[in-house]
Amino acid sequence: MVESPSSLVERLLGQRVTLLLKDARQLAGTLLGVDEHMNLVLDDADETTAEISRHLGRVVVRGSNVVTVHAVQAAPKGP
Amino acid sequence: MVESPSSLVERLLGQRVTLLLKDARQLAGTLLGVDEHMNLVLDDADETTAEISRHLGRVVVRGSNVVTVHAVQAAPKGP
Amino acid sequence: MVESPSSLVERLLGQRVTLLLKDARQLAGTLLGVDEHMNLVLDDADETTAEISRHLGRVVVRGSNVVTVHAVQAAPKGP
Amino acid sequence: MVESPSSLVERLLGQRVTLLLKDARQLAGTLLGVDEHMNLVLDDADETTAEISRHLGRVVVRGSNVVTVHAVQAAPKGP
Amino acid sequence: MVESPSSLVERLLGQRVTLLLKDARQLAGTLLGVDEHMNLVLDDADETTAEISRHLGRVVVRGSNVVTVHAVQAAPKGP
Amino acid sequence: MVESPSSLVERLLGQRVTLLLKDARQLAGTLLGVDEHMNLVLDDADETTAEISRHLGRVVVRGSNVVTVHAVQAAPKGP
Amino acid sequence: MVESPSSLVERLLGQRVTLLLKDARQLAGTLLGVDEHMNLVLDDADETTAEISRHLGRVVVRGSNVVTVHAVQAAPKGP
Repeated sequence: MVESPSSLVERLLGQRVTLLLKDARQLAGTLLGVDEHMNLVLDDADETTAEISRHLGRVVVRGSNVVTVHAVQAAPKGP
Repeated sequence: MVESPSSLVERLLGQRVTLLLKDARQLAGTLLGVDEHMNLVLDDADETTAEISRHLGRVVVRGSNVVTVHAVQAAPKGP
Repeated sequence: MVESPSSLVERLLGQRVTLLLKDARQLAGTLLGVDEHMNLVLDDADETTAEISRHLGRVVVRGSNVVTVHAVQAAPKGP
Repeated sequence: MVESPSSLVERLLGQRVTLLLKDARQLAGTLLGVDEHMNLVLDDADETTAEISRHLGRVVVRGSNVVTVHAVQAAPKGP
Repeated sequence: MVESPSSLVERLLGQRVTLLLKDARQLAGTLLGVDEHMNLVLDDADETTAEISRHLGRVVVRGSNVVTVHAVQAAPKGP
Repeated sequence: MVESPSSLVERLLGQRVTLLLKDARQLAGTLLGVDEHMNLVLDDADETTAEISRHLGRVVVRGSNVVTVHAVQAAPKGP
Repeated sequence: MVESPSSLVERLLGQRVTLLLKDARQLAGTLLGVDEHMNLVLDDADETTAEISRHLGRVVVRGSNVVTVHAVQAAPKGP
């Protein structure tokens, strides 16, 4: 049950993912593309910082700014 | 529906884009050029920081400072 | 009794590990994969900062953000 | 109407340009030279920070510190 | 009496060493391995920051975070 | 009237120059040498920070820390 | 009277030198070795920061942390 970083990123194509960036900014969107530098394309992306939240649409993210990439998980719904 | 980072950047040529830079500065302008380091040329560019906003005209942006690139979206107009 | 960095990382595959990142964030999860840049895949990962703790699930971590990788140790149980 | 980053920088040779550096310092001067690392030579250069302004004369700027390069624009004169 | 950096690091294999990292964290442990990027393996390692001290066990340290490596010296014992 | 960065640096050999470093430190001295990484040798160098000023003598400066290099200009003397 | 950075560093082998590091730490010791990355070995080294001073003994310093290297100068003795 081994999975390489690049195979996981490719398997996430078409799914909603969350990126944590070095400046603590988070981006959530549908992963449309990736290259060998871990530059990423997100569609329908939203950006969230400690102060603001805004819609960016389709966005290119330079890989050198990325800390983590993970699939958005269905949030547990409260009662 | 996969789109690589470089193909999106090239498809944005001639369009108004917004760049977020590492120092939290934003630049908005018409994307005129790009190279393999993601160095970018913006025309008719405006720079916005937390403190100031100013017009720069045509500007070269070193790719190593870029966090995200996205198309400027038509802002929803208020009533 | 010599062990290279890459052989230790590979020997940790399938085990619970803790990553310390440059922004002081910690990630704990099951190590699923690694590449030559020390990009890592953790499964069932939890992220802890000074302020928050949250579950991320399966996550890709860019190697350039990693400071240390070590096996999670069984915490000594108090009386 | 595409213009690459390197062609714009070369077209600016001999003109007054403003550099924004990573430490928020600005340099204004006549662009005399550039190389493939975007190291730049400015003549008759002035440096401006939040605190000070001073004349440097002819100066070499290491490209790794550069954020943006743009032509100095004639400032609109007030009434 | 010349000693290259790599020969000193290799001569320290099997000895207790102290690493100073860029974030001012210190790690002390038995040096088990090293590679050409100065990635290091410490065994029985303890981590010390301004705030905390904790035991990590066997740990991989990415070389890009390392400032200095030196042998732990026998502390002079008080009366 | 074009001058490349490397030709200017070489033309400054033997002259008094001022270096601005990334940590805002300034070094003034006679430029004795330079290599392809813009590592520099200054002779009879003085270091100035916001807090202190001290004499260093002959010093090697790693190029990666350099922001700008310029010739020391004869200061205009006040009345 | 030209001296390259690498020739000066090699000429300092066996002499007491002072290193200034990026985190403002200073190390003083006898220069025992150097490699092409400007990784350095100091013997009988003392480390000084704004807060503390301590003896490290023989130490490897990663070149990427080095700002300047210069020979320790005989301090003028007071009366």
